Amino acid sequence: MIATRRRFGRPLRLALIGGGPGSWIGGMHRTAAELDGAFRVVGGVFSSDPARSRAGGVELGFAAERCYGDIAELCAREAARDDRVDAVAVMTPNDTHYAISAAAVDAGLDVMCDKPVTETLAEARDLASRVARGARLFGIAHAYSAYPMMRAARQLVHDGALGAIRLVQVEYIQSGMAVRHEDAAPTNRLRWVLDPARSGQSLVMSAIGCHAQHLACFVARSRIASVCADLGALMPGRRVHDVASALLRFADGARGTFTVTQAAAGGENDIRLRVCGEKGTIEWNHRDASYMTVSMQGEAPRLLGRGDPWLPPAAPGTARAPRGHPEGLREAFATLYDELAEDRMLRSLGDTPPAPLYPTIADGVHTMAFIEACVRSSSQRAWVDVPATPGAD
Amino acid sequence: MIATRRRFGRPLRLALIGGGPGSWIGGMHRTAAELDGAFRVVGGVFSSDPARSRAGGVELGFAAERCYGDIAELCAREAARDDRVDAVAVMTPNDTHYAISAAAVDAGLDVMCDKPVTETLAEARDLASRVARGARLFGIAHAYSAYPMMRAARQLVHDGALGAIRLVQVEYIQSGMAVRHEDAAPTNRLRWVLDPARSGQSLVMSAIGCHAQHLACFVARSRIASVCADLGALMPGRRVHDVASALLRFADGARGTFTVTQAAAGGENDIRLRVCGEKGTIEWNHRDASYMTVSMQGEAPRLLGRGDPWLPPAAPGTARAPRGHPEGLREAFATLYDELAEDRMLRSLGDTPPAPLYPTIADGVHTMAFIEACVRSSSQRAWVDVPATPGAD
Amino acid sequence: MIATRRRFGRPLRLALIGGGPGSWIGGMHRTAAELDGAFRVVGGVFSSDPARSRAGGVELGFAAERCYGDIAELCAREAARDDRVDAVAVMTPNDTHYAISAAAVDAGLDVMCDKPVTETLAEARDLASRVARGARLFGIAHAYSAYPMMRAARQLVHDGALGAIRLVQVEYIQSGMAVRHEDAAPTNRLRWVLDPARSGQSLVMSAIGCHAQHLACFVARSRIASVCADLGALMPGRRVHDVASALLRFADGARGTFTVTQAAAGGENDIRLRVCGEKGTIEWNHRDASYMTVSMQGEAPRLLGRGDPWLPPAAPGTARAPRGHPEGLREAFATLYDELAEDRMLRSLGDTPPAPLYPTIADGVHTMAFIEACVRSSSQRAWVDVPATPGAD
Amino acid sequence: MIATRRRFGRPLRLALIGGGPGSWIGGMHRTAAELDGAFRVVGGVFSSDPARSRAGGVELGFAAERCYGDIAELCAREAARDDRVDAVAVMTPNDTHYAISAAAVDAGLDVMCDKPVTETLAEARDLASRVARGARLFGIAHAYSAYPMMRAARQLVHDGALGAIRLVQVEYIQSGMAVRHEDAAPTNRLRWVLDPARSGQSLVMSAIGCHAQHLACFVARSRIASVCADLGALMPGRRVHDVASALLRFADGARGTFTVTQAAAGGENDIRLRVCGEKGTIEWNHRDASYMTVSMQGEAPRLLGRGDPWLPPAAPGTARAPRGHPEGLREAFATLYDELAEDRMLRSLGDTPPAPLYPTIADGVHTMAFIEACVRSSSQRAWVDVPATPGAD
Repeated sequence: MIATRRRFGRPLRLALIGGGPGSWIGGMHRTAAELDGAFRVVGGVFSSDPARSRAGGVELGFAAERCYGDIAELCAREAARDDRVDAVAVMTPNDTHYAISAAAVDAGLDVMCDKPVTETLAEARDLASRVARGARLFGIAHAYSAYPMMRAARQLVHDGALGAIRLVQVEYIQSGMAVRHEDAAPTNRLRWVLDPARSGQSLVMSAIGCHAQHLACFVARSRIASVCADLGALMPGRRVHDVASALLRFADGARGTFTVTQAAAGGENDIRLRVCGEKGTIEWNHRDASYMTVSMQGEAPRLLGRGDPWLPPAAPGTARAPRGHPEGLREAFATLYDELAEDRMLRSLGDTPPAPLYPTIADGVHTMAFIEACVRSSSQRAWVDVPATPGAD
Repeated sequence: MIATRRRFGRPLRLALIGGGPGSWIGGMHRTAAELDGAFRVVGGVFSSDPARSRAGGVELGFAAERCYGDIAELCAREAARDDRVDAVAVMTPNDTHYAISAAAVDAGLDVMCDKPVTETLAEARDLASRVARGARLFGIAHAYSAYPMMRAARQLVHDGALGAIRLVQVEYIQSGMAVRHEDAAPTNRLRWVLDPARSGQSLVMSAIGCHAQHLACFVARSRIASVCADLGALMPGRRVHDVASALLRFADGARGTFTVTQAAAGGENDIRLRVCGEKGTIEWNHRDASYMTVSMQGEAPRLLGRGDPWLPPAAPGTARAPRGHPEGLREAFATLYDELAEDRMLRSLGDTPPAPLYPTIADGVHTMAFIEACVRSSSQRAWVDVPATPGAD
Repeated sequence: MIATRRRFGRPLRLALIGGGPGSWIGGMHRTAAELDGAFRVVGGVFSSDPARSRAGGVELGFAAERCYGDIAELCAREAARDDRVDAVAVMTPNDTHYAISAAAVDAGLDVMCDKPVTETLAEARDLASRVARGARLFGIAHAYSAYPMMRAARQLVHDGALGAIRLVQVEYIQSGMAVRHEDAAPTNRLRWVLDPARSGQSLVMSAIGCHAQHLACFVARSRIASVCADLGALMPGRRVHDVASALLRFADGARGTFTVTQAAAGGENDIRLRVCGEKGTIEWNHRDASYMTVSMQGEAPRLLGRGDPWLPPAAPGTARAPRGHPEGLREAFATLYDELAEDRMLRSLGDTPPAPLYPTIADGVHTMAFIEACVRSSSQRAWVDVPATPGAD
Repeated sequence: MIATRRRFGRPLRLALIGGGPGSWIGGMHRTAAELDGAFRVVGGVFSSDPARSRAGGVELGFAAERCYGDIAELCAREAARDDRVDAVAVMTPNDTHYAISAAAVDAGLDVMCDKPVTETLAEARDLASRVARGARLFGIAHAYSAYPMMRAARQLVHDGALGAIRLVQVEYIQSGMAVRHEDAAPTNRLRWVLDPARSGQSLVMSAIGCHAQHLACFVARSRIASVCADLGALMPGRRVHDVASALLRFADGARGTFTVTQAAAGGENDIRLRVCGEKGTIEWNHRDASYMTVSMQGEAPRLLGRGDPWLPPAAPGTARAPRGHPEGLREAFATLYDELAEDRMLRSLGDTPPAPLYPTIADGVHTMAFIEACVRSSSQRAWVDVPATPGAD
């Protein structure tokens, strides 16, 4: 990153869409984008209410002239500037991702979009077409896959260290929906989430299921080919999904299991991944994100951490601090931004960047195909195929 | 146990069927049965070859006159003794459990049988009838459910500490079949295991799947009502099952997931159980069997271990050594034997024993119903119902 | 922090002393200071060589006019600006901390200084006098004490949750000096470190011992009153200290133990703290920095993490992301900067800030008194008193 | 063991001294001695009151004729039997170990004695003379050193895998004395423990300090040459020691630290050992006794467990059950008994047994020398030498 940015001569300029004052995810994107100097955040749209958007941006310390009322205004006004933004980061409510992203792409901007990238597979495919047409870069903020250990795990799979992959297990357990929010007063801000007409095809899949699916596919380096899913609610009477379990079959023949829920009382934010190959197994737990266990058949398990000598020396995000100095989700987010920036800068410099590690719109299309397949499988109580994503892995 | 044995006046007398010299599971049963003085092992049948059986028993230190050639001889000759055996422990190959157990029950003996109790549901039901007819006791050696933490977990569920159970997840991961035993010389003792004609309906379900299913049902206090399973082999070309995953629905409405494999390269003997109720979640890992984590919604997770003040004071197997002095699988086995013995002694003394915690033939019937349902579901690629077990939970 | 900064109207302006391109600790300070908007880094001195300093600052993206040749130039030129810096962060080699800090304090700047604050107790006391005279703020970058769990642990001690403190154990284990750097070529940059004439009174105490001592005192809320220490080298023939162990007695009567080494082959960056009070014990391990175990006598141990309901709601650094989203050392550094900034802003606004949680010059004086006492004790092979720090706890 | 016992033709006969009904440590010794068939327990002395002793033995199931009133009666009456006992296991109160052991040794019996072996160094030396004179075997029940991982760790040290040992850290933390037993009614059975006139030179050293010291010396394969100790009480007003910390220097030059306490509120039974050599470090925690971490400089840490391929195949106690089947303290005790039995049987068969791994009277002499040195050091507030043990390591 550092060498590329030096050649490029400046950080990229980024506008935020969403992430106003008080938003923790806004602060996460903002600090992550700037962490290694890849981006400089210069303004954005900070609320769906134009007046609040402008005030919010100023409160966050941005120049008033770059705090806009909506994405259209941003695109129009930035286009007229010499120091126009290079990219936008989208962290608005789920049902606005598609329209905002499409507008930004069409305006010639690169995009880093929060998940889920769209509400439907059709939208995701449309977005992919626009990205291809405009030769834009499009990243999706599945930051869990950007932890150094997940990058290293994927590399081990690529290098054949585990042999052919046979079994992939992923789970994501939260407790935020273990409370009967339905009983709360109607002003409760979770109301729209609990309305099946507004929360999308599957609340739990949009919220965390997409993260789990992406992580599994990313590390195992394979798409999901078919699925038998059971979606529903752990909370009695709930009208939206708060739990999903599935049996998987990957395109390369590996089997898989998948469980996500936001309604496990007492849970924290627990993601577990196990990837078994013919020679050995990788296990990772988000609770201890800086390490993973690699157990090769016939050998003692090894506990691998950032900074281990065997890690590819150029692995993104592994060199910010020496081994044993804990890092977290912020650095993983920063790695996504760094990779997107490096991709952009190298293209601008006429170089051929390596295949992106950050999630792209092709990954988003696969995720939406998987979610729709899960919904279909669960209502049919049967295995269904996941439509293939042209041009992906 | 101690008070009851004192009233009863002597330990029960036990014969082993199987477990000859060199058998680790034989040593486990033998030492566990005697650990707290509930049983005294006096002889048995130690090989399917009569001559080797007698020699093996003597080598283990038993009186030659009580080392028999087969179960029929044992039953006949012991019946003629004043100090005849009270019970047999069966630890022979899987395909002999049914016939040996039936013979012992019919001869008026109580039985502790290794899993799987039979090869088919029909056999299990027949055995249940014989047990009922003879008013015998019949235990199954699912020792994992006898760890103090699993006893305590079931008690917490019973006491409503977790509220209604919503989600039950169990997995059992081994690596013994991650090697291509098929390529080994024909003298290889695993040959019969790898022959689908001889290894039963589902190798992995008979070997470890039954343990996982029993543990989940035991702690969650519910039977499995329906299942959607995916059985097969992780090892390419293998003709028997070495992996099984399933989506579950319990009789009380809880959802569940289930994954077992003997072919996870690098795995050890990892059993994990998570039981989520409306108020909180229990997590247990066989790797750290003496502790479990109880996470109540809105509270810090607690790490509970043997000897914690909240444990029911009479909990079986919790008082052998003070907290912090590690125990293992042997003590869990011993608890099964103690409970069976106490049940027998109390009945003999005219008392009404409490409902058994050790797995009974009714549990065995449910296990066989579950295994057959998994096989059916996997071949039909569909959800199927698990036939109910009359007279159980 | 946020509310105070809004009242103050702008972030504080910070200059870095040290931390040029390629320095990981420079990046750590820079990103941490800006993380929550408390500071904006505007320039500094980036090398002891004036030309390299100016070039390095520009390379890092600072305006050339604010990249200075040395601290004297920085103080003089910044004093002439309307937008002059409010503070400096010092991260130069150990033997320059005192002179740079003194210059900055005398120039009316606040300081955040890396440890050890000085080379001798006399220098530390002199610095304390200058700080008092100038009514400046002086923070020391003992960031380990700023992890949310360490803040919470100190609060628990303050609240009496553990009762009177009886035993404090701290250790800090690294492996960087487990290699015989002495055998490397003379260009080796560790050469000066290994020269006892240049590396200070005790290399290991300056490098990590001061962190361990501060952490123990911070959480236990007590100073060290006497010590019996054993300093030396694990590496045969080494002329500087790479290991130190000590028995402690705290001012409040608690006992303590202390072990630090940089020469434990295979070690990582392991810090462990155990604080036992009359009612219970806290245990924390840097390897799992986001959690700590609180074991109260007669209760099951609880695993406490950021975001647990019992945490003081205003605890610094606990609200950046929801529970279960890993954070690391960067956020701990940021908390130190936020606290220093809040202290400064509140004073400027005429408010009375609370007692600082960030380490102050009084803490630095105690640390240097402790180090000198350890050196004396080790050479005398006897217990010695640690001189009290006037005006401290 | 098994091959040797087969050649020897019978198990050894063991009498218990102490361990009456209700004693958990009695049950531990009894079941451990018999676990692998090395010993058969045939009787003993079960109380200091002769009548209670005889009744207790019968209640435990022993033949009345072999339940004796005291050790003298046992020695005299057993000597007259053809099937006389080969050995006694002593688990009486500390202040009786010496006299009972001496009587047994003088009567030609082998002994397994609970720790501490005696109350003074002089007694331990006297006992050593008697053992040598009678050519008896004398084991001490430091079972923690018999966990498979501790046997393996010692082997790694012996094989030079860690290189020269540089630093040894051991601690043993309990909470049983974190309660003010002094305030309880005078019938309290802890009364004598709390009376410095009756509890020996240092209560905490006799109770657990000796275990910690032995474990460190056993694994590091070195005696302690000098010590600087701080003994006392965490509980205010207590007249006996409940805490001890010490700085150590081993005979081979390694440094060490040592902390034991029975008064850490909320503690369990936590033993930690770290052994750093020039090439790597071993870490072990009794909480997870079946595994240890081996961290070699420049390599990822490995988690080693029973059954790992690298373990010496004949390592005692590693073959009772396959890897992944938890074992505990009972199996470690059994290993001590097996080793003592094998030693005895091989000598009887005219073979030369290997050097014992079980703790011998020479180890007991060193332990008592260490305890007396700690007491002296603590009262003198100075380093003192630990007298060497002739004929030991």
